Amino acid sequence: MKETVNKALLWRYATKVFDPEKILTKEELHPVLDAMRLAPSAFGLPIWKAVVITDKSLRTKLRAAAWNQPQVTDASHLIVLAVRKHIDEKLVDAYIAQMAKTRNTDIESLTGFGDMMKGFIRSKDAGWIREWAARQTYIALGFALETAALHQIDTCPMEGFDPKQFDEILGLDAQGLESKVIFAIGHRSNEDTSALAAKVRLPDTEIFIGMN
Amino acid sequence: MKETVNKALLWRYATKVFDPEKILTKEELHPVLDAMRLAPSAFGLPIWKAVVITDKSLRTKLRAAAWNQPQVTDASHLIVLAVRKHIDEKLVDAYIAQMAKTRNTDIESLTGFGDMMKGFIRSKDAGWIREWAARQTYIALGFALETAALHQIDTCPMEGFDPKQFDEILGLDAQGLESKVIFAIGHRSNEDTSALAAKVRLPDTEIFIGMN
Repeated sequence: MKETVNKALLWRYATKVFDPEKILTKEELHPVLDAMRLAPSAFGLPIWKAVVITDKSLRTKLRAAAWNQPQVTDASHLIVLAVRKHIDEKLVDAYIAQMAKTRNTDIESLTGFGDMMKGFIRSKDAGWIREWAARQTYIALGFALETAALHQIDTCPMEGFDPKQFDEILGLDAQGLESKVIFAIGHRSNEDTSALAAKVRLPDTEIFIGMN
Repeated sequence: MKETVNKALLWRYATKVFDPEKILTKEELHPVLDAMRLAPSAFGLPIWKAVVITDKSLRTKLRAAAWNQPQVTDASHLIVLAVRKHIDEKLVDAYIAQMAKTRNTDIESLTGFGDMMKGFIRSKDAGWIREWAARQTYIALGFALETAALHQIDTCPMEGFDPKQFDEILGLDAQGLESKVIFAIGHRSNEDTSALAAKVRLPDTEIFIGMN
């Protein structure tokens, strides 16, 4: 397993040129989406949703709002991670209801946990909650990118897009969502020379601090 | 591979009770740290450092600043992800120098890329950069948690700690660092009943939005 994971993570790179002919089947995409679903988030709260886009004309519009990066249209799929704008008591109640259902337990026995989460949310200002929510999506992003690499599927995570334009084009605002980070997924083109470039990392001593 | 990854991600949970006798060897910990190192970050910039802590008396102090959560002291290791406070031209230059060295190319040929990053950083205010940096650590966190699970190593990601107190106890401020998120790593105790609780996730239709 050690070698398998290491090899996959070295094979991974932010793909610049995708092969537009290589389309992922639902069966191929599923493990990546499922890894995102199984990623942890603060308290386990369902803070984000993922928009999975294949439509080419829609992606042409999105590309114009993403510095014209070809990955947006040329990859098999584009995935937009968006957070809920309303992280509130209603969301906590929905989560608690799902917990009671999943674990076959009384909602009443979960009141303490629910109240704790509600108290936490109330104690923070809206700006803080917004950033906290955004950070959770990056855990899911990490799970997606690593899982894709393990399945020899290429990805390109991207922050270079206009979230407001994305929200408008995708109608996310009306769904109470805000786009935070996106990634393209598919298969690299043989012409992508950036696949050959060695990964640049500072020496371990500049990354890890040991305190024994 | 599909089944292996899915099994590992279902096996993973935020471990509440670690077995303090089960200490990870350097060889066991290495793939997890290495996955963090290989995780992507914006532009590839080395935005964070990870503090790897075994010392028990140090962890006792940290536990007091983390709601007295036993994972902090009882897991094999505690890992603190901290971002650089100075994300500036100097950091870009260090990264560009490393890139030239790794890829055996002239620094001059990378001037355009360096200038682009410097321009990006200059165009944002300090608060935005701080949050942007924090988000990058969560990608590395995702890679660490997934990789650990693939190696049957338990983790508990934690946001419930006082970053300022952590920075003081660990002397991070003097090193130009700020703690952002932490995780405990080791092996679960047989007594941790939370290992048995089913993962709570909303139905797929509440998580994924398909746009074909």
